[in-house]
Amino acid sequence: DRPVKTFEHSLSTVDKGEFRHFMMKEIYEQPEVVKATLQGRISEKHLLEQAFGSDATAAFDQADHVQIIACGTSFHAGLVAKYWLEDMAGIPCAIEVASEYRYRKHVIPAKTLFVTISQSGETADTLAALRAVKGKVLASLAICNVPGSSLVRESDLCLMTNAGPEIGVASTKAFTTQLVALLMLSIALARRHGLTEAKEAELVQALHQLPVLLLAAVKLNKDIEVLSQDFAEKNHALFLGRGPLYPIAMEGALKLKEISYIHAEAYPAGELKHGPLALVDKEMPVIAVAPNNALLDKLKANLQEVKARGGELFVFAGADHIQPEEGLKVEQMPDVPEILEPIVYTIPLQLLSYHVAVLKGTDVDQPRNLAKSVTVE
Amino acid sequence: DRPVKTFEHSLSTVDKGEFRHFMMKEIYEQPEVVKATLQGRISEKHLLEQAFGSDATAAFDQADHVQIIACGTSFHAGLVAKYWLEDMAGIPCAIEVASEYRYRKHVIPAKTLFVTISQSGETADTLAALRAVKGKVLASLAICNVPGSSLVRESDLCLMTNAGPEIGVASTKAFTTQLVALLMLSIALARRHGLTEAKEAELVQALHQLPVLLLAAVKLNKDIEVLSQDFAEKNHALFLGRGPLYPIAMEGALKLKEISYIHAEAYPAGELKHGPLALVDKEMPVIAVAPNNALLDKLKANLQEVKARGGELFVFAGADHIQPEEGLKVEQMPDVPEILEPIVYTIPLQLLSYHVAVLKGTDVDQPRNLAKSVTVE
Repeated sequence: DRPVKTFEHSLSTVDKGEFRHFMMKEIYEQPEVVKATLQGRISEKHLLEQAFGSDATAAFDQADHVQIIACGTSFHAGLVAKYWLEDMAGIPCAIEVASEYRYRKHVIPAKTLFVTISQSGETADTLAALRAVKGKVLASLAICNVPGSSLVRESDLCLMTNAGPEIGVASTKAFTTQLVALLMLSIALARRHGLTEAKEAELVQALHQLPVLLLAAVKLNKDIEVLSQDFAEKNHALFLGRGPLYPIAMEGALKLKEISYIHAEAYPAGELKHGPLALVDKEMPVIAVAPNNALLDKLKANLQEVKARGGELFVFAGADHIQPEEGLKVEQMPDVPEILEPIVYTIPLQLLSYHVAVLKGTDVDQPRNLAKSVTVE
Repeated sequence: DRPVKTFEHSLSTVDKGEFRHFMMKEIYEQPEVVKATLQGRISEKHLLEQAFGSDATAAFDQADHVQIIACGTSFHAGLVAKYWLEDMAGIPCAIEVASEYRYRKHVIPAKTLFVTISQSGETADTLAALRAVKGKVLASLAICNVPGSSLVRESDLCLMTNAGPEIGVASTKAFTTQLVALLMLSIALARRHGLTEAKEAELVQALHQLPVLLLAAVKLNKDIEVLSQDFAEKNHALFLGRGPLYPIAMEGALKLKEISYIHAEAYPAGELKHGPLALVDKEMPVIAVAPNNALLDKLKANLQEVKARGGELFVFAGADHIQPEEGLKVEQMPDVPEILEPIVYTIPLQLLSYHVAVLKGTDVDQPRNLAKSVTVE
């Protein structure tokens, strides 16, 4: 009984163009779609909060708790937001996969802003979670890529990611634009909890740089293609990160799983010695997403022990932070403001999974058994 | 400048006795050490709260938020407790690995009970997290197995797990006794938030049954030894669970990693279709910890698709909940009260990892590169 909407994509947006696969096209689109996601939502130095809609101000004023719900790749975006929100806004933030949240007796603190994240806006478990909290939360906010989707229609507030149609089953540009949306949300809430004008200006200026930095990251494509040869024969990989780069390591591992069918798993770097270190040998390369030195020294010490078993370490790091040595390869990344690291460091991991999948000859855009939108349980 | 304490273990407690490995001895000790953990802490129908010490009452009365911090296996115990606390006590509970928590700017709600979990009480990251929140929390509570350890000395409250010395690097009896301690904590807090006398009596009566139920689970040893043959040649495994059984799936995967060097990973069952399903084939068996039908029907539907690729499913389930069929093996578990499922279902997963490791000829008690207590970062 509700009207059927037809979405007409212009041919240019759903065509692979010069690219062999939609996934690569969508990776390359990221500088542009991130710009579209920022468009009209930031001024030179400020966040333009009306982007969240006219009801957002009251909700943001009152919110003293954030609950994020998502699945798969969107869940990883939400995990990054937890670090940002607690760090910048000092607001307690909880995050959970939708399929767990909806089936348990959860507790909802009084003034909870309930944030859902979904590319399609039709993810069954995420929608069910939203419906389960109706009337029990201060306000619901959907971060979504499809206008008019169920999630958007049923939420109090929404922020569209403007990534355009995403055809590749393995999400790329939807993820980075979700991160951009979540960073804008973090700024909006942080403003009410001590974020100074100067600091806001610094963050917004960083956002203005983001498309250029993403372009620099995309240009690593050839390097990463070479690097991918080290992975094509592997059946395992371990991704490590710390802080807001830990969810990026998770996302890197998920991409490799989804399209190259390599069993990749992510750990927060500090957990390595609590179990997974036993697995590391020449069959299981370790990939560290480590912009700066803080994590690397400890990691190198941990991995010293597995060198004898042929354990290999690949590090994505900022300029001059680490020198390659035997058993340690370094992919040098453009220097980026710390707040943008999770967004920019996503790109080489997307490229890595893409090239490994191509070398393995899998169906990059339509990996086996996966659907673009999980609209059933 | 602090006095050196010497702990003298009687020979009988650190001897392998009739067992080939300490790990198996410690698996078999669980009915007995769980009894020791309950001893003097529950009456016929009630929790005896003085077990938490005389200062506990005031702290429990005031706490309206719980933050749990741990690493490795202890982190999995804490994850189960989050389900219990929010379900039974309706108190918001956050949990995080210590190495992440200590290094980020976290938010501490006003009346937070800060719970740390560590077998040794010397885990470096957990201790650092405790020290970081000193003076900022309502009270700190250590759940720990070593009296006089740093964690116990530096916490306001403690509840000892009474598991006795644990020699095997892969934790077994420390984990199940941690779960028992956390269940007692959940009851203590739930009492203040609507838990009826009748419901408390029901939970306590379930706890009284626990040693017998654990014994029944340990007696599955021969069955599991047979089952382990299906895993000895594998390099991968995927563990699935839902609700408080999801952390048990995580713990099962960690055990297999630690001592058999099989790359095992756990997912909440609902996330399967968001990525990992692409990995499943005959090389990657799927193990589901699924006491009842709620999860299984969906799981079977999900796995239907991978049957053609030889995907195999192993289910640990209650009596008559599921029938074996082609590609689906069932290990029938004793029927247990729902609240005890996470504790009892841990046992067959411990046994599975043990027997797989023995078949693979690894060093069960001293897996490569792992230390019993991670006292450095």
